[in-house]
Amino acid sequence: MAQLRLALAQVNPTVGDLDGNADLVVEWTRRAAEAGAQLVAFPEMMLTGYPVEDLALRKSFVEASQRTLLRTARRLAEAGLGEQAVVVGHLDRRPVSLVRPGQPAGAPLNALAWLHGGEVVARSAKHHLPNYGVFDEFRYFVRGDRLPVVRVGGIDVATVICEDLWQDGGPVSVTRAAHAGLLLVINGSPYERSKDDVRLELAARRAREAGCALAYVNMVGGQDELVFDGDSLIVGADGTLLARAPRFEEHLLVCDLTLPGAHPSPQSAAQPVEAGDGTTITVERTVLSPRQDPPSETLPPQIAPALDDVTEVYAALVLGVRDYVRKNGFRSVICGLSGGVDSALVATIAADAIGPENVHVVLLPSRHSSDHSLTDAEELVARQGLNTRTVPINDMVEAFERELTLTGLAAENLQARVRAVVWMGLSNEDGHLVLTTGNKSELATGYSTLYGDSAGGYGPIKDVTKTMVWALCRRRNERAEAAGEPPPIPQEIIDKPPSAELSPGQLDTDSLPEYEVLDALLDDYVERDLGRDALIAAGHDPGLVERVIRLVDRAEYKRRQYPPGPKITQKNFGRDRRLPITNRWQEP
Amino acid sequence: MAQLRLALAQVNPTVGDLDGNADLVVEWTRRAAEAGAQLVAFPEMMLTGYPVEDLALRKSFVEASQRTLLRTARRLAEAGLGEQAVVVGHLDRRPVSLVRPGQPAGAPLNALAWLHGGEVVARSAKHHLPNYGVFDEFRYFVRGDRLPVVRVGGIDVATVICEDLWQDGGPVSVTRAAHAGLLLVINGSPYERSKDDVRLELAARRAREAGCALAYVNMVGGQDELVFDGDSLIVGADGTLLARAPRFEEHLLVCDLTLPGAHPSPQSAAQPVEAGDGTTITVERTVLSPRQDPPSETLPPQIAPALDDVTEVYAALVLGVRDYVRKNGFRSVICGLSGGVDSALVATIAADAIGPENVHVVLLPSRHSSDHSLTDAEELVARQGLNTRTVPINDMVEAFERELTLTGLAAENLQARVRAVVWMGLSNEDGHLVLTTGNKSELATGYSTLYGDSAGGYGPIKDVTKTMVWALCRRRNERAEAAGEPPPIPQEIIDKPPSAELSPGQLDTDSLPEYEVLDALLDDYVERDLGRDALIAAGHDPGLVERVIRLVDRAEYKRRQYPPGPKITQKNFGRDRRLPITNRWQEP
Repeated sequence: MAQLRLALAQVNPTVGDLDGNADLVVEWTRRAAEAGAQLVAFPEMMLTGYPVEDLALRKSFVEASQRTLLRTARRLAEAGLGEQAVVVGHLDRRPVSLVRPGQPAGAPLNALAWLHGGEVVARSAKHHLPNYGVFDEFRYFVRGDRLPVVRVGGIDVATVICEDLWQDGGPVSVTRAAHAGLLLVINGSPYERSKDDVRLELAARRAREAGCALAYVNMVGGQDELVFDGDSLIVGADGTLLARAPRFEEHLLVCDLTLPGAHPSPQSAAQPVEAGDGTTITVERTVLSPRQDPPSETLPPQIAPALDDVTEVYAALVLGVRDYVRKNGFRSVICGLSGGVDSALVATIAADAIGPENVHVVLLPSRHSSDHSLTDAEELVARQGLNTRTVPINDMVEAFERELTLTGLAAENLQARVRAVVWMGLSNEDGHLVLTTGNKSELATGYSTLYGDSAGGYGPIKDVTKTMVWALCRRRNERAEAAGEPPPIPQEIIDKPPSAELSPGQLDTDSLPEYEVLDALLDDYVERDLGRDALIAAGHDPGLVERVIRLVDRAEYKRRQYPPGPKITQKNFGRDRRLPITNRWQEP
Repeated sequence: MAQLRLALAQVNPTVGDLDGNADLVVEWTRRAAEAGAQLVAFPEMMLTGYPVEDLALRKSFVEASQRTLLRTARRLAEAGLGEQAVVVGHLDRRPVSLVRPGQPAGAPLNALAWLHGGEVVARSAKHHLPNYGVFDEFRYFVRGDRLPVVRVGGIDVATVICEDLWQDGGPVSVTRAAHAGLLLVINGSPYERSKDDVRLELAARRAREAGCALAYVNMVGGQDELVFDGDSLIVGADGTLLARAPRFEEHLLVCDLTLPGAHPSPQSAAQPVEAGDGTTITVERTVLSPRQDPPSETLPPQIAPALDDVTEVYAALVLGVRDYVRKNGFRSVICGLSGGVDSALVATIAADAIGPENVHVVLLPSRHSSDHSLTDAEELVARQGLNTRTVPINDMVEAFERELTLTGLAAENLQARVRAVVWMGLSNEDGHLVLTTGNKSELATGYSTLYGDSAGGYGPIKDVTKTMVWALCRRRNERAEAAGEPPPIPQEIIDKPPSAELSPGQLDTDSLPEYEVLDALLDDYVERDLGRDALIAAGHDPGLVERVIRLVDRAEYKRRQYPPGPKITQKNFGRDRRLPITNRWQEP
């Protein structure tokens, strides 16, 4: 057996910021070296950020990533970190250009490199390319066919990338035969509810299959609709959890592992072997330092406590907002505050994400606003110390009404659009990012106004159903109370019956069923993709099933125009659900 | 040699309208039978419409398509058309469920069926799945591996689907060895400029490779951003053009072909053969009617005249608008009319698409509008007989200005957004679809207002550069004059210098270079995807290159919020150009 001190750098790169991401690699490698680690691993596509989408097809971008990789290796050596073994994800391309029709331009690779001594000492690329849900990797990458096995500290470490762990066959399936002492997986694996459970179970199973310990390092941070939750972890060869990083924050997970020393006579490399998925994989061996280099003392094992489901979602939303604001160069946000629960939650998330001093809210009362709307909103502002401003909209609405005769929904929409003009104007004037306050139940049913309440730059709760909105508010208040602080969200806001307040005495329940009923049906129709018959068989009211299917299917255009927002479920209304606008299909 | 009267049904299906599409098959098969055709072919995915996107992953939709196929075969027989050989595209799934990770749910197939005698007599599926540009077929389909060769009228007819023709290897590569007398290709091939030239050249080349005549039937009509141009055609075994349908309209192309009779001893079927692309293809033979059935007299060959480049684009835009309006259940449109050339062109296209009586325009003068804007717009309205209404926006703008201090761009945007509130209100009240009037040069550089001039349901000229806008106006007027009609677009509108008229004396050239210079650069950066160095090497001004790259890259969010519009170039700003919003990359 041999000892290895391993560091997993759960960091937050930014798409396209090659120099900034390289800085992160140097900085966190220094921290790992200071912690005595012999090997430090960074996430998938670390140097470019992830996902880069069509940037992968741009020659200048691929070449810039390649240059950044070489420069990072040199920079590490120049900083005295050349003896550190570093594994890093980047964008590469197949060196011999085998141009084939249907293959992405330039044959890009979702690549992995081992850096050592100022040089790139081993290279491979992702074998299994995910092409479902939010992923389009057949569009962007060609497949890798190598498994690097690198001897470091006397241990043979095999490295693969993300989806290679999720699918059967491929490089993971040859790891056992390659006699690896550790399987290291670098990831850009986005958050969705309860994914941590699935991830641990998978890692344990693959460790047992590979017959060795498994280390999993994941990215953290928000990128458009995706939130990466970190959750880096290490399991033993028997699947036992050995170490786990806290989620939704940057972290260096350092762990001492006792592993089988390198096999004395490994099979000679460079022979392609059957990989169980109709392809072959070539094991490529590299020796960095044949001697063992045991750390003087052993670190205590570190396993971050699990988060409950609601707390986990809240953390994902906060991180999504913080990174969308920061990575797009904004410093402050603005949103309308109606006195209702949705905008209250959005403002609270924003305050937690970037500080209340950077959150600007606008109260936009109309003739249909109730008295409590204004007072409840003012109470929330006071409790959290937000920047506030009141802009009554009656005069503006009446200016339109003098020229146009608008009735019914058109008149309701007018008010919502006038409000949007106000916050978009303030955004343009003062440079705030507009946060949009619609929830998933509204988005699903089309219960929103195009270019009205749905206007803005980022929708923090667009993937959060109304029932979850209430749960998040309650949990946020509970957390405050547990910490001895006053609850940030006034209870009145949570308790009142929901209303758009666009016509006299209006309530959501005039147009929609109770949210408990609606949300359960939406979960089954949208997330679980059940058809009409299956929904009725699952116990939903047949009349309601037909009505909700029709509402959801007809709201596709509105959803397309909606800003992005953090994805927290398997099916949100973003890139993972792609439907034509012109579409006459109705569930039979 | 044998005679075959072939009919290519260049028709316009609607996505999701299974019954309506089946009606088209029955109706056009009847027409083909009346014209004496022995074989009639319909486009790719005829029964479902194309592209169906994530509907392909919905079990209930796949099953509905399968039922529709069987019902269509029966309906044809019941209508006395059972003896007609019919080739039709539909959505199917692989019968034995080989569930593999990464494979689309339910293993859907982009399928082809031969119908005869009330039954499905042969089946196959697309082999080459396009997964670039606007296509995502690895997400939706699994690959087919058969080449049906069906003997009809004594001739062996091989059938493939669309991309199978474009890529090397696969079923087309085994057609020669299968001794086919005709290669029939069913297509859903979207329009882009000059694609007709590429298509004819490709068909001629593949006919020579296959050693037999080739018939190509394409869909026609608009579907969201795609416009299918038809252009169905037939070439001889030597590549000579024999027949060609007019583009951008439904058409039954009937042609008498003299073809080699069926090979007396074809190789026995059902043996997979190497297909030149690392896969195998199984040739499956079916005999429908071994006797020849020559038509009594021969039809004159029909070759529709080619369209010049500008006329072709105009026709694509008209068809795109007509079908987006009609297929989404609208009957009328509304748009702002500024007196400028963009909105003049959009209104004219709309009048050509759905009739001037269904086009509503709003004149929305502000304090910055010039006198000629109003008079030029009124002149256009009068010439075309559009419905018109004038809504001065000063009072509404001032109502906002009394509450908010907005300066510079924020003040300019306010006016644009007030206008959008007006036309969105009229749209909601009267049920018109809003047409958005921005052009590609604006969209590229971000020279538009989010939720202002960019608000609406469909953007007819979003893929048309400003220089092409002028060319289209001129050509439209020339066509009118050639027909002895008054030109629909006042010359003053075409001649005046472009201005957004959002501040005093404003001209586009205050913020942007001359459009001739800008559009040439945009073509090279956006459509040809050249990097910074390549743009400078191509002769563009270095300072302008840097400025325009920055403008284009920063306008990504605005473009995401833009309505769909007909795609006429290889790279528009729709599904074929997918970039992250959060993106720090700058061309070095």
